[in-house]
Amino acid sequence: MARSRLTPERENELYTAVLDLLGEVGYEGLTMDAVAARTRSSKATLYRQWGSKAELVVRALRNDKPVHLDEVDTGSLRGDFHAVLRRSDDCQMEKNSALLRGLSHAVHTNPDLLQALRALLIEPEMTGLQKLLQRAVDRGEVRPDNPALSYVTHMMIGAFAARELVEERPVDREFLIDYAEAVVFPALGV
Amino acid sequence: MARSRLTPERENELYTAVLDLLGEVGYEGLTMDAVAARTRSSKATLYRQWGSKAELVVRALRNDKPVHLDEVDTGSLRGDFHAVLRRSDDCQMEKNSALLRGLSHAVHTNPDLLQALRALLIEPEMTGLQKLLQRAVDRGEVRPDNPALSYVTHMMIGAFAARELVEERPVDREFLIDYAEAVVFPALGV
Repeated sequence: MARSRLTPERENELYTAVLDLLGEVGYEGLTMDAVAARTRSSKATLYRQWGSKAELVVRALRNDKPVHLDEVDTGSLRGDFHAVLRRSDDCQMEKNSALLRGLSHAVHTNPDLLQALRALLIEPEMTGLQKLLQRAVDRGEVRPDNPALSYVTHMMIGAFAARELVEERPVDREFLIDYAEAVVFPALGV
Repeated sequence: MARSRLTPERENELYTAVLDLLGEVGYEGLTMDAVAARTRSSKATLYRQWGSKAELVVRALRNDKPVHLDEVDTGSLRGDFHAVLRRSDDCQMEKNSALLRGLSHAVHTNPDLLQALRALLIEPEMTGLQKLLQRAVDRGEVRPDNPALSYVTHMMIGAFAARELVEERPVDREFLIDYAEAVVFPALGV
């Protein structure tokens, strides 16, 4: 794909428009025509650059993440967690959870969306997390045979899901730090 | 409500039929007419007993749970967890997760379903869990100020959500025991 034809600024502009539209009309309602109209580009360009609506939406979400796990390396596990959270902004976190909630609805009827979410968002983050944890093991912070190492994603997904389902409150930075200190670090023996 | 008019056997029969129908046609497709036809009862009886489709469905789900947390008291926290899991059957667990996945989809468009799920399923289980944890605190197994006490639901919901979303495998008893040993007990300091 000739993604290099767009400047990073133009790409950002497109992604922002996609997320705005997604928030306004939802995944089902979002059409490539609407994206083309809103961004004054041609549908042919959109398809050439992104291949499908699913890929465009997921790349827009990925682009909007304030920090990618594989870019963080502070020298300690606690430091890495705090660095990730410090760069996230509560308001943006709430907006993104709302978008992801909407998408979790849409994946039921759009298998290509689920596949794009897995390949472009979930798997890269899982790989980044594995590297971050492996460094903690290499530094001797976490024992290599600690069984909680396989479950860090489970713990974190639980924080997001239960916060909304049970507590009926949005996830924010303070809550995530408290949760990491109460659950994630003790389970990892840190 | 005159729920006492039905024998427990008849009530079980009705609940089983509701869950069968739910698995076949989903929440949106399930009608009180279909339930009445399948169970050879009148719609008037169904509404008199349960008030609404949302309540009927959620009570059927609750009835199907192999064990309610507030019935368990083995004398230790680990024993209580194992007792809950021992009474659950992998096949039933998978069937119920599939039903709940379907419902999590339906709650987006049916606020009365979300309310019934909260009032009749989530809150009683949360109360049962709080009692079970309080006994562990009273026995001195868990420190009363352990911050993970507020997050046991989050940890458990994460186990279910991530197993399916990330691992793409159904939840089973062995996995839940491993997760409790790796995450929940260490976080609680047990």
